[in-house]
Amino acid sequence: MSDPETQQELGITESKEHSTGDWYAEVVQKAGLADYAPMGGFIVTRPRGYDIWERLKHTLDGWFKQTGVTNAYFPMFIPESYLEREKDIVEGFDPEVAWVTEGGYDELDERLAVRPTSESIIAPFMSQWIRSHRDLPMRLNQWCSVVRWEATETKPFFRTKEFLWQEGHTAHHDREGAWDETMLRLDQYERVYEEVLAMPVLKGRKPDHDKFPGADTTTTVEALMPDGKSVQGGTSHYLGTSFAEAFDITYADSEERDRTAHTTSWGLSWRAMGALIMTHSDDQGLVLPPTLADPQVVIVPIWQADNRAAVLEYAAEVESALSQAGLRVELDDRENRNPGFKYNEWELRGVPLRLEVGPNECAEETATLVHRPDGETVTVDREGLADSVERQLDTVHGKLYATAEETLEAGIREAESREEILGTIGRHGGYVKCGWCGDEGCETPIKEAIAAEIVMVPLDRAAEPIHRSCAICGDPAEETAYFARTY
Amino acid sequence: MSDPETQQELGITESKEHSTGDWYAEVVQKAGLADYAPMGGFIVTRPRGYDIWERLKHTLDGWFKQTGVTNAYFPMFIPESYLEREKDIVEGFDPEVAWVTEGGYDELDERLAVRPTSESIIAPFMSQWIRSHRDLPMRLNQWCSVVRWEATETKPFFRTKEFLWQEGHTAHHDREGAWDETMLRLDQYERVYEEVLAMPVLKGRKPDHDKFPGADTTTTVEALMPDGKSVQGGTSHYLGTSFAEAFDITYADSEERDRTAHTTSWGLSWRAMGALIMTHSDDQGLVLPPTLADPQVVIVPIWQADNRAAVLEYAAEVESALSQAGLRVELDDRENRNPGFKYNEWELRGVPLRLEVGPNECAEETATLVHRPDGETVTVDREGLADSVERQLDTVHGKLYATAEETLEAGIREAESREEILGTIGRHGGYVKCGWCGDEGCETPIKEAIAAEIVMVPLDRAAEPIHRSCAICGDPAEETAYFARTY
Repeated sequence: MSDPETQQELGITESKEHSTGDWYAEVVQKAGLADYAPMGGFIVTRPRGYDIWERLKHTLDGWFKQTGVTNAYFPMFIPESYLEREKDIVEGFDPEVAWVTEGGYDELDERLAVRPTSESIIAPFMSQWIRSHRDLPMRLNQWCSVVRWEATETKPFFRTKEFLWQEGHTAHHDREGAWDETMLRLDQYERVYEEVLAMPVLKGRKPDHDKFPGADTTTTVEALMPDGKSVQGGTSHYLGTSFAEAFDITYADSEERDRTAHTTSWGLSWRAMGALIMTHSDDQGLVLPPTLADPQVVIVPIWQADNRAAVLEYAAEVESALSQAGLRVELDDRENRNPGFKYNEWELRGVPLRLEVGPNECAEETATLVHRPDGETVTVDREGLADSVERQLDTVHGKLYATAEETLEAGIREAESREEILGTIGRHGGYVKCGWCGDEGCETPIKEAIAAEIVMVPLDRAAEPIHRSCAICGDPAEETAYFARTY
Repeated sequence: MSDPETQQELGITESKEHSTGDWYAEVVQKAGLADYAPMGGFIVTRPRGYDIWERLKHTLDGWFKQTGVTNAYFPMFIPESYLEREKDIVEGFDPEVAWVTEGGYDELDERLAVRPTSESIIAPFMSQWIRSHRDLPMRLNQWCSVVRWEATETKPFFRTKEFLWQEGHTAHHDREGAWDETMLRLDQYERVYEEVLAMPVLKGRKPDHDKFPGADTTTTVEALMPDGKSVQGGTSHYLGTSFAEAFDITYADSEERDRTAHTTSWGLSWRAMGALIMTHSDDQGLVLPPTLADPQVVIVPIWQADNRAAVLEYAAEVESALSQAGLRVELDDRENRNPGFKYNEWELRGVPLRLEVGPNECAEETATLVHRPDGETVTVDREGLADSVERQLDTVHGKLYATAEETLEAGIREAESREEILGTIGRHGGYVKCGWCGDEGCETPIKEAIAAEIVMVPLDRAAEPIHRSCAICGDPAEETAYFARTY
């Protein structure tokens, strides 16, 4: 390297395998995604990080709009008396609320909660806006930030006191409409993981003792991280009539009878970005799927004094061909950096495909493509280059997905007893499936011993054969529980 | 009308001319743009209102990105000690800050300001990220909400304690770079008013006593409302080195000398939507320019029992042709509403163009187009319909702009004395231009007498001949002052 000092500052020094937490923090900072704010628990999302969030948001927002959702914006503050109207919400969130108590030089008459989630301010307006069955279904969404005053250690995107998310809130005629909505949004979350983040997820229900406060059913997509922990990747709640009753969301049906609506809420936060970074990145730095990367392709020209002009001209021609094809491409023609330095820098930043052009490529009218995840090299013709690059980007997406899928498949194991659950998670991490009686008390000993919990049960009981008995207490099993350590 | 009750509920009852404030509030609510939140000073932005903001944002964000701006996200809270680091900021905003003092069940060690503007949290990070002249210019922007605890009456979009905006923050090598940036953003604000909001604005500087706290120069775009008051439509600040000095934003120049950066900030809020609604709407309700409207065209089929099928088929064909051309179009084929009801409803909602098709249009293969602003009717051929509709939409935009321009041009008057200033603004509203010595003391008597103030002085002193003497005190004039009442 020509520039050893900068190189050292740029490079990742921690190991993903041996010090996952430190490695993750280093990737986030050195790839320029985020920095720590002066207040514990808060981060600053830098342009490279925010760009990823914007792309994810753009795709998901498009799907929402195609399926009847309209965006709105509700106040970031919720009066304490509103938060108290649904008792489960206040019990669930009260310990985590940041309170505004002073405005200007005056103490406020009533404390205002900085929204931890917005059911309590959205539901009263739905109540006003919904009069008749013709006003249903009503589907609102907002992209905003929320605050939850958790005392745990800051982990950028995974765990921060303020985080960006979207929260959808809908009202329907009946249970069936609301349940279909709950599933539709869960499926969209699964799809955004698969198609945008290049990650498989498991879909399931949270056990009753771990539902969203006030929900009838909380559904979840769970992603397995390479260190064997599960991340709750997005949740979609069927709220039944609890919020509708607390906030009086009723409507006149077609026979003018007064009926109570059924509501849902569903949210996906920037934790999805945390899961993305954790899953695909490596000891060289960030790895991004082509769906989210900018640039998707970096062109690194390799020249000597005697062929500099020809190589650079060829590189510029290649850049123009790719960007005309709609690809996000950057030509790194910096004079004061050698190719090796550039390779490292673009690898650190996660660019999925490197395109090298030197005198050989020039002469033969080809380009050398290098896949970020595994360094695989492919030489392709200049003719039809944009198509070849698009195919290689698809291949990179496929590789990322396949690796994550292998991790997930290898990470689901079965157990027949408490000792086996403890031993398996202790040794391998990942998910352990077992029979479960349905009693929270049977989760407690596992939680206390190894901090693993039931992250989900299958959505459809009939879909998987249930073990005959609860692996912990031996009573007849009601469910198949997936135990795992979590983020 | 077949449905008088609903009709009455839908229609605007206040007069724009005689009770502008009440009329404005009624339009905002009945067109479904916003509602009042339970806490004074806060509003709920409903889907139809948020959609307008999203379109405005999309356009402006695109221009920002084309001109080197990257989006980021900084925490919504600013520690009190950070706010205090730039003395003008703390003096300027302290009376308007909402304070978070409790997190969960604990009192915080340090109060956290809910951001009233983010210079104080962004500047310290710019200080960390900027090392050498190669890191400049740095251009960051965020779309977010801010809170200013003002005690005045709530006016949706114009004056709310929480509001949505974008705030850009940039750092440059020197005064020239920062000044060019300040002007570039001011020009983009002017352009968004002209091209998107269909409104002319005046560009100018705020007088020194009304600058943004800590700024060297505050520039502004001002829009004249039909009731004769001026709205500050967006501001772009050249901050000089005050923030760079307070937060240590320095860089090594090409000769490794340590130099202080020059910074800017610039913001446009949803007040632009307030100005839009106030300017174009009328006693029938909202009027939107085609740039922001969804739908842009509403098709109202007019049928009798014997031609219903043919008319509806023709209407559907027209809808499909327009939407294939990329227009936002809606076919209102509701059976239980008559055409008159539909006309009123879509007028209330501000749809720029109504397309009527009845048996005549069917037979003659034409369509009747009605302009929302003035009811002008044009019959066009089915062949080439999409092009005709696009031209008519351009015409509607032009009409809206022309009317607003007439108001602005007629609203600028000159005055030579204090009495003339008071009399002219008292009688006509609008702007009064006069010579001004530059002393805040000469604004005071005008402010006290009729609540008018100096909203701007021309950017370029050479561009307009300056009156010889200050209209108030008679001393030699330094500037041309534009006095007006404001929102």
